[in-house]
Amino acid sequence: MTYEGLYEQILKKRSFLCVGLDTDIRKIPSQLRKSSSPVLDFNRAIIDATHDLAIAYKSNMAFYESRGAAGWEDLARTVEYIRAIDPSAFLIADAKRGDIGNTAALYARTFFEELDFDAVTLSPYMGEDSVRPFLEHSGKWVILLGLTSNPGAEDFQFLRLQNGSMHLYEEVIRQGAAWAGPDRMMFVAGATRAELISGIRRIIPDHFLLVPGIGAQGGSLVEVVRTGMNDHCGLIINASRSILYADDSAGFAGKAREKAKELQTAMSTIFPQIRH
Amino acid sequence: MTYEGLYEQILKKRSFLCVGLDTDIRKIPSQLRKSSSPVLDFNRAIIDATHDLAIAYKSNMAFYESRGAAGWEDLARTVEYIRAIDPSAFLIADAKRGDIGNTAALYARTFFEELDFDAVTLSPYMGEDSVRPFLEHSGKWVILLGLTSNPGAEDFQFLRLQNGSMHLYEEVIRQGAAWAGPDRMMFVAGATRAELISGIRRIIPDHFLLVPGIGAQGGSLVEVVRTGMNDHCGLIINASRSILYADDSAGFAGKAREKAKELQTAMSTIFPQIRH
Repeated sequence: MTYEGLYEQILKKRSFLCVGLDTDIRKIPSQLRKSSSPVLDFNRAIIDATHDLAIAYKSNMAFYESRGAAGWEDLARTVEYIRAIDPSAFLIADAKRGDIGNTAALYARTFFEELDFDAVTLSPYMGEDSVRPFLEHSGKWVILLGLTSNPGAEDFQFLRLQNGSMHLYEEVIRQGAAWAGPDRMMFVAGATRAELISGIRRIIPDHFLLVPGIGAQGGSLVEVVRTGMNDHCGLIINASRSILYADDSAGFAGKAREKAKELQTAMSTIFPQIRH
Repeated sequence: MTYEGLYEQILKKRSFLCVGLDTDIRKIPSQLRKSSSPVLDFNRAIIDATHDLAIAYKSNMAFYESRGAAGWEDLARTVEYIRAIDPSAFLIADAKRGDIGNTAALYARTFFEELDFDAVTLSPYMGEDSVRPFLEHSGKWVILLGLTSNPGAEDFQFLRLQNGSMHLYEEVIRQGAAWAGPDRMMFVAGATRAELISGIRRIIPDHFLLVPGIGAQGGSLVEVVRTGMNDHCGLIINASRSILYADDSAGFAGKAREKAKELQTAMSTIFPQIRH
């Protein structure tokens, strides 16, 4: 997926919504649990109900890995299903990996070749050579953790660095942006801290931000748009639990669509603000 | 596995060697590739050849994940095989994970319950709440990335922090050690930087260090022991490629044993230095 291709999808769907397929087998409606592949059936229903409203799907690997080989099969079939329904959807493996070169190359092959994701989330701690092998796959993206939305973000990301007023997360974003341009790299920027997103925009005016924390984690869409939007939108907003588990009856997919539609409608009304 | 149990194994085997089962299907001897489960057969042969010389086995998840569901099966069978051959071996999932609470809890269940590992490596970037769920599994360990052995360690780990002379990796180790004692937590400390291990020992005199970078990555065993050993050994030294791929003929297991024996012999001669 190219930068322009992604922007076209955003304009066409009037949406920058990402649906997080963090599918917890213990939380899906009981009638689905009798199926031979409950997680895959659930994902298909959610995808059917949301693909015209969302430009991206993000799968958190933990939810699939925790079910071993069966989970990996569900993940692979889910990617195939989205590709068949909507070939232009942007598919994110939320893996938060980070390892030395030869190992990173294996992870890159897993997510980009075995599983055909467009992007993978990476942790910056091990530095550039842990990221570089992912950038060698043309047309694929790295989404680097910058500022996360969990309480533990305070522990290290907010440490102030010597010789300047930067926090660690700002330095991570500054260096990361030098590894790849806005057409190959994005950054995670937690929405529970919308007031900090303006600061991030000063460092990287053009890169997309992947914003978790809307919905179940309580971030404000309006605030994030006000501080984070740029002239190519520049935002992908993720919602997982608030859409997936909006309802646990047989009508779960309809309710999921309602929740996704609420977000897409809000995004759509903001669209005149996008200059293009 | 308890701290004392681990130390007993070290004394009994006169070894603090960890064999890294980073099994690359493209690198294993050609005659094994005809088998229906070449990676599992290779791992079994390596385990048979080294289990009296090694106190730990570390599986880097990328090598298994890159092969999807089949890789996960191989990993699960490998863990079972080690448990059957040597129930007291210390089993490390080299996963370098780090994610928000509910996701971390799923990863913890995967590695500690589904797969019965004793320890998992974690990245510190997302802070304490990304680590805490792993510590809720009694008898299991967290191995936090402190100082890694790759070139990219320079990018962020060596950043100096304001108000003090600490580098980021030192602050990570200092805070991490407050989350759990030496009986539940270890730290990765890259052996290519043995001169820095003395500094780490001043921050955490009692915690075990998991040291990669001996062998293929070129660290010096003697230097690491001189700077890093404490009165309960306090070191687990990993070697992967130098043992696994010492030979690619039918005699690979014998050659792997030779390489492991060389390291164990060197460790054994150092043993009078361990006070106990």
